[in-house]
Amino acid sequence: MDLKTVKSLIDASACRTDADLKIRNVKIVDVYNKELFPSDVYVKDGYIIGFGGDRKAQEEFDGKGRFLIPSFIDSHCHIESSHLSPAEFSDAVVPCGTGTVIADPHEICNVTGLDGMQYMLDASKDIPLSVFLMFPSCVPATPFEHSGAVLSAEDVRAYIDNPRVLGLGEMMNYPGVNGADEGVIAKLGEAYRLDKIIDGHAPSIAGAALDSYVSAGIETDHECETPEEAYDKIRKGMYVMLRQGTACQNVLQILPAVNERNFSRFLFCTDDRQPQSITREGHVSHAVNLAIRGGLDPFIAISMATLNAATCYRLRDRGAIAPGKRADFFLSSSLEEGIVPEEVFLKGKLVAKNGKTIAKARHIEPVNVSGKMDVKNFSIDSFSLKLKSNHARVIDIIPGGVVTGAGEAYVKTDDDGNWIHDPGKDILKIAVIERHHGTGLHATALIRGYGLKHGAVATSIAHDSHNIIVVGDNDEDMLHSVEKLIETGGGITMFKDGRELGTHRLEIAGLMTDDSLGNVTECLDKMHEICERELCVNKDIDPFMTLCFMALPVIPSYKLTDSGLFDVVSFSFVDNCL
Amino acid sequence: MDLKTVKSLIDASACRTDADLKIRNVKIVDVYNKELFPSDVYVKDGYIIGFGGDRKAQEEFDGKGRFLIPSFIDSHCHIESSHLSPAEFSDAVVPCGTGTVIADPHEICNVTGLDGMQYMLDASKDIPLSVFLMFPSCVPATPFEHSGAVLSAEDVRAYIDNPRVLGLGEMMNYPGVNGADEGVIAKLGEAYRLDKIIDGHAPSIAGAALDSYVSAGIETDHECETPEEAYDKIRKGMYVMLRQGTACQNVLQILPAVNERNFSRFLFCTDDRQPQSITREGHVSHAVNLAIRGGLDPFIAISMATLNAATCYRLRDRGAIAPGKRADFFLSSSLEEGIVPEEVFLKGKLVAKNGKTIAKARHIEPVNVSGKMDVKNFSIDSFSLKLKSNHARVIDIIPGGVVTGAGEAYVKTDDDGNWIHDPGKDILKIAVIERHHGTGLHATALIRGYGLKHGAVATSIAHDSHNIIVVGDNDEDMLHSVEKLIETGGGITMFKDGRELGTHRLEIAGLMTDDSLGNVTECLDKMHEICERELCVNKDIDPFMTLCFMALPVIPSYKLTDSGLFDVVSFSFVDNCL
Repeated sequence: MDLKTVKSLIDASACRTDADLKIRNVKIVDVYNKELFPSDVYVKDGYIIGFGGDRKAQEEFDGKGRFLIPSFIDSHCHIESSHLSPAEFSDAVVPCGTGTVIADPHEICNVTGLDGMQYMLDASKDIPLSVFLMFPSCVPATPFEHSGAVLSAEDVRAYIDNPRVLGLGEMMNYPGVNGADEGVIAKLGEAYRLDKIIDGHAPSIAGAALDSYVSAGIETDHECETPEEAYDKIRKGMYVMLRQGTACQNVLQILPAVNERNFSRFLFCTDDRQPQSITREGHVSHAVNLAIRGGLDPFIAISMATLNAATCYRLRDRGAIAPGKRADFFLSSSLEEGIVPEEVFLKGKLVAKNGKTIAKARHIEPVNVSGKMDVKNFSIDSFSLKLKSNHARVIDIIPGGVVTGAGEAYVKTDDDGNWIHDPGKDILKIAVIERHHGTGLHATALIRGYGLKHGAVATSIAHDSHNIIVVGDNDEDMLHSVEKLIETGGGITMFKDGRELGTHRLEIAGLMTDDSLGNVTECLDKMHEICERELCVNKDIDPFMTLCFMALPVIPSYKLTDSGLFDVVSFSFVDNCL
Repeated sequence: MDLKTVKSLIDASACRTDADLKIRNVKIVDVYNKELFPSDVYVKDGYIIGFGGDRKAQEEFDGKGRFLIPSFIDSHCHIESSHLSPAEFSDAVVPCGTGTVIADPHEICNVTGLDGMQYMLDASKDIPLSVFLMFPSCVPATPFEHSGAVLSAEDVRAYIDNPRVLGLGEMMNYPGVNGADEGVIAKLGEAYRLDKIIDGHAPSIAGAALDSYVSAGIETDHECETPEEAYDKIRKGMYVMLRQGTACQNVLQILPAVNERNFSRFLFCTDDRQPQSITREGHVSHAVNLAIRGGLDPFIAISMATLNAATCYRLRDRGAIAPGKRADFFLSSSLEEGIVPEEVFLKGKLVAKNGKTIAKARHIEPVNVSGKMDVKNFSIDSFSLKLKSNHARVIDIIPGGVVTGAGEAYVKTDDDGNWIHDPGKDILKIAVIERHHGTGLHATALIRGYGLKHGAVATSIAHDSHNIIVVGDNDEDMLHSVEKLIETGGGITMFKDGRELGTHRLEIAGLMTDDSLGNVTECLDKMHEICERELCVNKDIDPFMTLCFMALPVIPSYKLTDSGLFDVVSFSFVDNCL
């Protein structure tokens, strides 16, 4: 805070000058004592300067007896998962009561490296939502695929002293930490140097492996699956996040670990939350309400979403309704029965009402991050799938998650060994095409359980390297789909018999769009409907999200990268035939 | 932490190398979940690297089933109040279970300015106790006295980026904050610049005054008098300290404010703790045990003295027994019945056993802070007390505190108006002699209730400017006493009929000595006994501590500085006569 502002706050607080705003007739949710506190709240220059008393204010706002709740802090998210640019993301989540997010931009950085980091910093600078970033620690996620960039300890060094960069993003490379890998330690060292936070990502890690992970100074985890795992991580000093993303959700699973003695060690996060989830359920608000309905004391739930996150990430200027804190709060008529952010104030300004933003966030032109589709040596031959035998390996989709099975099947081939689609079997061709550096790399494999009868679906969202991934029964529609994505600069598209059935454009790095949540949701809803009706995609899966995870070579069993079919269990590439 | 150490910790934690130490057969106090957790603890390079498992260690220590408790953190203290140099202070408090102190060296800085700051940093550097400093914010405490130094915002700037300086020390000048005084704001600004902590000192401050104080970013308070005051400060976002000093104690008063919902906002501190209190009762341990005996859950009490303090002061490497934290802990056979630090480990080394240090702390030569006694134009005439009438103002001692009454009395004078001691009345002469800059300033007044029949008592500890203060019935003994202090470089001394009855030497800035707690306590015990027996000092007061506070012009009502009799209520100097 600059000294001029401090002086102004003190002057107003000490009643020598008028406040800008008085919020009267509210019950303040006091996250420190965890109780209600009826009082007026005074705001100056975007900060709370005091309660009650005989102060004067330029403007008054009648809270009508409602609850005044500090804005929520999302402790860990990837804005990219919303498909929205930071400005549109702000307009999408601010009406849900989210005031601050701590975002790891590792999706866009996998595509565009430091340009992506810079874009996320610039695009999230002057918008109502406060966006802090964690510098991505694991770009690329693995050496088995070709991402758009490789970020080193030197890159960390170039950005980590930015006051809006709170530390090092989720350290997914736990074998690298456990093995004291030099490159990993060098990245951690950059966080140590400035005493910044290091986020964790430690699914099912326990015992000595967890000890070494925590000994390395990694402070948070959002990957717990059981209350016992959460409890163990709390005991070892981590902050544990209750996560309510779209694909991965653990709020209700982990909730039994939260009690009156350890609640200060829990936070909430959304991690990967898709546009439709935000539209239909909300954001952090959804996680908080789930926890409250699950039996958690609402004051504790709110503290976890506010004060605890601010404490963990050392954001001293927020996380509570108290003097000197940012005037980030919202009004809700109900608490135990479900929090509904009816009027949202950020920095003392009314920015959203009844689920709608009042003033749209400022947009910036995406620089060096748009239309990135450097695909070379690409033709219909790129989809060739020649098999050495007809006993093939098959990626088996398992509905409800991102894990696949290591399947096998007897398939048809032509005289040259080329796979032939059998309409009687739900086996399709899947291909990944490198799109970042024109390497011409591409790979094909077989996938079972997607359901599609005829046509192709393609997307440029393919964790974590975000090459183009496409599934189909015929090479022509697959070719059209990929060509469409190259033309639009990325997105999700569907073709059938050479006809475009629908396209969701993601012109920013092939991951995000500068369009509104409403439009994106509408477009995706329509495309989902077409997927089901025209392409007959398996109703038990999300046709796009499922596809997005088929290239992620850290989640078992079979996955396909631009370099070939990968067996995550043996951690090696395997042939398409057994 | 340096990268070599991190690598070593990870290697040992991941069981690739041996640990240095295994503590087995203990019940770990888990301050996160607030429960017991039976496990082995492994230590490498001074850090905890994990629990249990099949690890190997170079050395084993049998905990014999006892409780393993993280070392206590004293959230706010003035080491000077112990009369001990940092090395001797370490040897004194480490056996009490204190592992870390956050010290505000404002006493020595009032005497020696930045030399005092530097000495405290140097002298506390390589000792078993971890000492962090807060840069004193209010030197001098008031403009009504002459201290040895004036510390400005520029001085703050010169020291605040030191990693062992955690921020700005207790901001006693709350009128200056409330008034947005430029010099005060500039000092606060130095803390804002590096996002460091600002400690508070806000006795009975409430309402708009507290709002403006907290709006200025001041985060802690240790001056609460009632549970209601504590609760109000918690609500406004402060961390509240339960203080158990020697003169000022509020643990049991404030305790009712601590509950299962807000406990994470409370800390413990000792503030000003005299040598005899440390010897007889312990240190932070005493405050913790008092709270436990007062009904506080022992896990919450321990968390307040460990995790909460580490969280507030952002000391991420301590405050709990968990991987990656410093191996600072101790063993106690009992918990609810009173914690007794039987064996104390700091950085993984056994440093104290059964109340005694095992290896003494390293001492350094005091540079530019010793023997500072620059008294000029001083003679027996300095004690002259000429009254305009025989209706005089009298400082009335009120036993049990540091507040005085604004008394008056009819006294005897000689023909020239000089005060004459009346053996039938308990009224004595008191004098303050400036000792820092040879200004020749001195002042005299009358004091009632000290009890002394014949002789004089003098000390160079006189809050906060620490000039020489002396009380007596006759000028000769007062002269001898002051001369003795000038000769020894400071301390406490007593004279009767020209005979020295005892002297406690405080050769470091006239405030501290490089002698042991045992010797200091023994010397003070003997002097107390002489005070009572030979000088007949009032048994209801501490003869030395009472004297130390008679020059502090911020606590009502009458006080004497080197510039004259001061009325704290009217905040102005007053004549010795009415």
